[in-house]
Amino acid sequence: MRTGVWLVGARGSVATTSIVGGLALRAGLTAPTGCVTELPALRGPALPTFADLFFGGHDLATTPLTKRAETLADAGVLPGRLAATLAAELTAVEEDLRPAPTGGTQADRAAAAVADLTAFRRRHRLDRVVVVDVSATEPAARPHPGHADPAALRAALAGPDEVLPPSSLYAYAAVEAGCPYVDFTPSTGLRLPALAELAVARGLPYAGHDGKTGETLVKSVLAPMFAMRHLAVRSWSGVNLLGGGDGATLADPAANAAKVESKQRVLGETLGYLPQGQTRIEFVEELGDFKTAWDLITFTGFLGTGMRMEFSWHGCDSALAAPLVLDLARLTAAAHAAGRVGPLTDLAFFFKDPLGSPTHSLAEQWQRLVEFTGRLHAEAAA
Amino acid sequence: MRTGVWLVGARGSVATTSIVGGLALRAGLTAPTGCVTELPALRGPALPTFADLFFGGHDLATTPLTKRAETLADAGVLPGRLAATLAAELTAVEEDLRPAPTGGTQADRAAAAVADLTAFRRRHRLDRVVVVDVSATEPAARPHPGHADPAALRAALAGPDEVLPPSSLYAYAAVEAGCPYVDFTPSTGLRLPALAELAVARGLPYAGHDGKTGETLVKSVLAPMFAMRHLAVRSWSGVNLLGGGDGATLADPAANAAKVESKQRVLGETLGYLPQGQTRIEFVEELGDFKTAWDLITFTGFLGTGMRMEFSWHGCDSALAAPLVLDLARLTAAAHAAGRVGPLTDLAFFFKDPLGSPTHSLAEQWQRLVEFTGRLHAEAAA
Amino acid sequence: MRTGVWLVGARGSVATTSIVGGLALRAGLTAPTGCVTELPALRGPALPTFADLFFGGHDLATTPLTKRAETLADAGVLPGRLAATLAAELTAVEEDLRPAPTGGTQADRAAAAVADLTAFRRRHRLDRVVVVDVSATEPAARPHPGHADPAALRAALAGPDEVLPPSSLYAYAAVEAGCPYVDFTPSTGLRLPALAELAVARGLPYAGHDGKTGETLVKSVLAPMFAMRHLAVRSWSGVNLLGGGDGATLADPAANAAKVESKQRVLGETLGYLPQGQTRIEFVEELGDFKTAWDLITFTGFLGTGMRMEFSWHGCDSALAAPLVLDLARLTAAAHAAGRVGPLTDLAFFFKDPLGSPTHSLAEQWQRLVEFTGRLHAEAAA
Amino acid sequence: MRTGVWLVGARGSVATTSIVGGLALRAGLTAPTGCVTELPALRGPALPTFADLFFGGHDLATTPLTKRAETLADAGVLPGRLAATLAAELTAVEEDLRPAPTGGTQADRAAAAVADLTAFRRRHRLDRVVVVDVSATEPAARPHPGHADPAALRAALAGPDEVLPPSSLYAYAAVEAGCPYVDFTPSTGLRLPALAELAVARGLPYAGHDGKTGETLVKSVLAPMFAMRHLAVRSWSGVNLLGGGDGATLADPAANAAKVESKQRVLGETLGYLPQGQTRIEFVEELGDFKTAWDLITFTGFLGTGMRMEFSWHGCDSALAAPLVLDLARLTAAAHAAGRVGPLTDLAFFFKDPLGSPTHSLAEQWQRLVEFTGRLHAEAAA
Repeated sequence: MRTGVWLVGARGSVATTSIVGGLALRAGLTAPTGCVTELPALRGPALPTFADLFFGGHDLATTPLTKRAETLADAGVLPGRLAATLAAELTAVEEDLRPAPTGGTQADRAAAAVADLTAFRRRHRLDRVVVVDVSATEPAARPHPGHADPAALRAALAGPDEVLPPSSLYAYAAVEAGCPYVDFTPSTGLRLPALAELAVARGLPYAGHDGKTGETLVKSVLAPMFAMRHLAVRSWSGVNLLGGGDGATLADPAANAAKVESKQRVLGETLGYLPQGQTRIEFVEELGDFKTAWDLITFTGFLGTGMRMEFSWHGCDSALAAPLVLDLARLTAAAHAAGRVGPLTDLAFFFKDPLGSPTHSLAEQWQRLVEFTGRLHAEAAA
Repeated sequence: MRTGVWLVGARGSVATTSIVGGLALRAGLTAPTGCVTELPALRGPALPTFADLFFGGHDLATTPLTKRAETLADAGVLPGRLAATLAAELTAVEEDLRPAPTGGTQADRAAAAVADLTAFRRRHRLDRVVVVDVSATEPAARPHPGHADPAALRAALAGPDEVLPPSSLYAYAAVEAGCPYVDFTPSTGLRLPALAELAVARGLPYAGHDGKTGETLVKSVLAPMFAMRHLAVRSWSGVNLLGGGDGATLADPAANAAKVESKQRVLGETLGYLPQGQTRIEFVEELGDFKTAWDLITFTGFLGTGMRMEFSWHGCDSALAAPLVLDLARLTAAAHAAGRVGPLTDLAFFFKDPLGSPTHSLAEQWQRLVEFTGRLHAEAAA
Repeated sequence: MRTGVWLVGARGSVATTSIVGGLALRAGLTAPTGCVTELPALRGPALPTFADLFFGGHDLATTPLTKRAETLADAGVLPGRLAATLAAELTAVEEDLRPAPTGGTQADRAAAAVADLTAFRRRHRLDRVVVVDVSATEPAARPHPGHADPAALRAALAGPDEVLPPSSLYAYAAVEAGCPYVDFTPSTGLRLPALAELAVARGLPYAGHDGKTGETLVKSVLAPMFAMRHLAVRSWSGVNLLGGGDGATLADPAANAAKVESKQRVLGETLGYLPQGQTRIEFVEELGDFKTAWDLITFTGFLGTGMRMEFSWHGCDSALAAPLVLDLARLTAAAHAAGRVGPLTDLAFFFKDPLGSPTHSLAEQWQRLVEFTGRLHAEAAA
Repeated sequence: MRTGVWLVGARGSVATTSIVGGLALRAGLTAPTGCVTELPALRGPALPTFADLFFGGHDLATTPLTKRAETLADAGVLPGRLAATLAAELTAVEEDLRPAPTGGTQADRAAAAVADLTAFRRRHRLDRVVVVDVSATEPAARPHPGHADPAALRAALAGPDEVLPPSSLYAYAAVEAGCPYVDFTPSTGLRLPALAELAVARGLPYAGHDGKTGETLVKSVLAPMFAMRHLAVRSWSGVNLLGGGDGATLADPAANAAKVESKQRVLGETLGYLPQGQTRIEFVEELGDFKTAWDLITFTGFLGTGMRMEFSWHGCDSALAAPLVLDLARLTAAAHAAGRVGPLTDLAFFFKDPLGSPTHSLAEQWQRLVEFTGRLHAEAAA
């Protein structure tokens, strides 16, 4: 099952780490730490192997992959000599990276992206290409009548308006090219009625959105703990200090707002009430690809006794996100092969703001993921 | 369903808080925060109501309950005026507190305890009495041939030896008196072959052991999180600073060892490997009934990138334990009423070192608890 | 040396705690914990004793002092029974609290405040009255030509404009009444050229500003530590979560900005460069009078090795501020008695943003305070 | 002023970092971050320049310096390419590293060490050699009559007994060779009456002991802060998690005890009373050369209000210690050149357990250091 992994934002930290890591796994140079699809509970015949994965992608930037990999190695994200060892493989992938289409109407740009995707699929004789958006977070999209349905969208795209935000234009191109799609960012992506309708019409599955890699991951196990123990959470305040490209983007209050909102949602939905407190994101350039989150939770127990918990999380976003990108590409490819269509709500485990979000409890999400994957394996084996 | 709750260690902080809290709930003076049996997922007809609960117990100490309650109020564990409001009810409970039997052979002491239990049951016309051990942690028990089976045990108890540690002598008396039993401490309690055999022979259910109230509670959601994400935990080090009676007891290395061991077990069993690091318990008298735990977890993600997490937990042990004592009394009473016999492994949710321990994941334990309680309610409603 | 302590914001948490604490010290009911003027290095004959202190003040609010004290006792700020024990004394102080003057021109209001101060001084035959501003933080003042010099100010005050922010109007009244003045808040207070000139003309000393009670106190010892060790601080980020009246005020971005700025100043001035990162203030009502600050400091050592430090500070602002209010009243009274005039730069130890700020290092500020107090004692003894 | 720096434990992490860093400074490849003698307040003509420093030393291990430097680079302690850049210089230093003398009586071994020191001084035509002990911490020394005075010591050393612990044997050799001596570890070193008397007789200055690099450094500014604010510290508990060679050594309870004791001393001496709580050291191999310390401080303020502070310190011991080793070598050399004799109590700034310890406050120690260095510069310039 030859599977393309087409990364939107292909020269960013997450994408570079995903590519280097995928190549290292294929070459047997590293263990699949962080790849949940390699856990005994999820492994099986439905998934493409690491050797089945082929990488390509779009980016506005032009820095060579090997250069990006060296920068990440200097920052402690990648092991020192890995990029050098994989130099030949990285050069090969470089051939499959395309400049982000610019100029013309949005319809023109979408057509160029479709052409890139189709050429990639053909060149490597791929069974399918999964498009994964790992580009920088964009501000909330402005509403447009073209978002309502496919016909209105097509008409609008041919005009001079910027109808779709960039993430959604890529999602549109993915759908038009017959590619399953994964939204790893908080940007709009495929979440517009017109695009969702088109994806279903084309028989495509899609997953999203906003990869759950740090503070929200911890929240998704701690909030259920307080709920299961019937403890009353009075306040939950958090601060996220982050450098790197995403940090600078999120210093923009517009992008920040989207992310912050999805971060607090897990609390309200898990606890059944919204405690006091907020989550803040701040840009501290010197932290680079590492991120520090601190949360303070105050709660009361029996007879109103006040108690508290604090945690600090010092994580490397790229190292946490990249294996999930590979997981999602494998799972979405398997879902497509198995004929699944529309939102893959059983992949909620991976996301801060899951599609169709039935639960934010990590344990329940895990249970659903295990069952979903089990069904895929059973069908594949049949 | 008139239900006795007989507390071994009845004048300790946990017992006093359980009694005051139980009376306050009956009087409608407080919300059932911290009582998991009052969550929608667990509530139902099989459980005795708070008004059905009658409190009694044994203790070596003789400080009046109202005095203990005032001390706890000064320490911020109980609301300031609650003990005064409940003065009449507390005085009534005082009547049902008995001195811990001393003198004579262990058989004599067991007989005295049985007589106390029987008198309590008769006096209040109770359907059953659940014995809950909330006394201070004792050192690991020395092996004795009498632990092997009921006949050997009976013979030995009549002799001059200290055959059983105190917690086990109370468990023996509970069984002899036909009382279901809950072991809330890390002491030996009912965990001896002779006692387990006797309990089954008498048709009694029992639960245990070692209430999960603080750091281990957090571990039981964080360790599964790392496991589910396939992250490699390299070290997990913890320190528990605690004052209060239990702190002084645990400063004794022998008692400490038992507790520390059960605290690390959750890691090995959840992760499938034992990370480096240890858990320490230290006595800091000035912290009183409050406890501070700090844990440092170092872990690696994709491609070996090193990351870390820290948490601090500032909890009041009595306020966390007392509602669980009420929960366990209600659930064990319901299990007895429904004819359940032997270890209640479905109550693992409540314990650091659960009987028959099939899992240490809080989410899985919760699932089992919900199913178990659901069956009891269905039977009760039928 | 009969000394009046006139509190602007006399029914707030800090003022109430100062009054209750001052009365408790006079009655010998508590130790002077937190009062630096009771340390051996500072004690001496120049200072009025606690028995010499008489409390009065202005407030817009009308809640009785005893009621405020009970609220603080419920919140854990004051010991449970202290307000009851001091009921008679508190009722006596209540007589000396006046409503904040309202209506008329600012000149009218100032005259009313001067009359209150003069009556208070006369009623208790006081040698002097020290006015201490402990009212809620106000937004940054708008410039006005009347701020430039006393003549312009007097002319403007008689007109219809709101020439001075409230804190400065009180400072003006203090000066006009011949009272030394202490600015414990980040508000404008006496920091206007016209007021400073007037104070000097009247032969009055004044101190300020912005009491250093929590996170900034810690910064003022940690920043010098990094400087003395020649370690390069790369980023210093902080968040302050606070409830209480001041928290709500500071949720107003205008007031917030003033406070945040004075909090970061200590870093730039101590280190000689401004590290990355910011300090945030957030309102979390449920924290009440307690405040939690968390700071992350990243720094590099020899050969660029990256390291980090985190701290959490859980303090009760009123309990930290109130003894300093007493200290400042005593010291400023002594300075006035000794004929000091103008800004008391030797009191920098007490302030986040000290007047004339020669240093932000707590240790150097301490040294200056010890020398200053020593000179006062020597003069008093002579 | 050609100055030898002879490191006992010359192939350990601290020594290797000192040598690599010293060579990098000489070559202008790095800034003197962490070197306090390069601060404007301390810089001056009395100190040898970095170009004046020549490195040598003893070690039981034989791993080449370049290999040790590579290991430290892999661990993130040294920059990746620095050891390679300095390959020639490191090879030259390798020539001046000698195996630790073994075999024969202790007198024989001391004579061999003296010969090594003398040869080193002669080979490089050095004005003096400062011996700095940076070897692993050893258990507390057993008393021996030979420790009492020089004559008894000489007699005993010639016999078959192990009279001196290794650190003291090196100190003896240093003194015999006419070398000033610095004790950077908690081992016995020069702290025996016989050795102190000998050093003075030889006209030698010496400094120590136990470099203050992490948690104790923070304590030495925080404890004075609480004292200066008259806040009552109720408990101060700490845990130090460390890997690396020193961690393994300190897992030995005997060595641990010495270190733990010197860590708590700062509190008692600064506060004037000893708060509850202890400091623990634990070995967590996976932490490598990095160390995490966590401290909890509980304190009360005005009217007994309880408050708390926590801090975590994540430091790299070698990166913190190495620049201080260079500082101490420079300062001790300058003191020797200026004719200072006996314990250099003005260097307390650098040590956990300073000789003659007049104060543990970092700020006061700094003041003394500035004055001491100023006098040396004035004499040198004269």
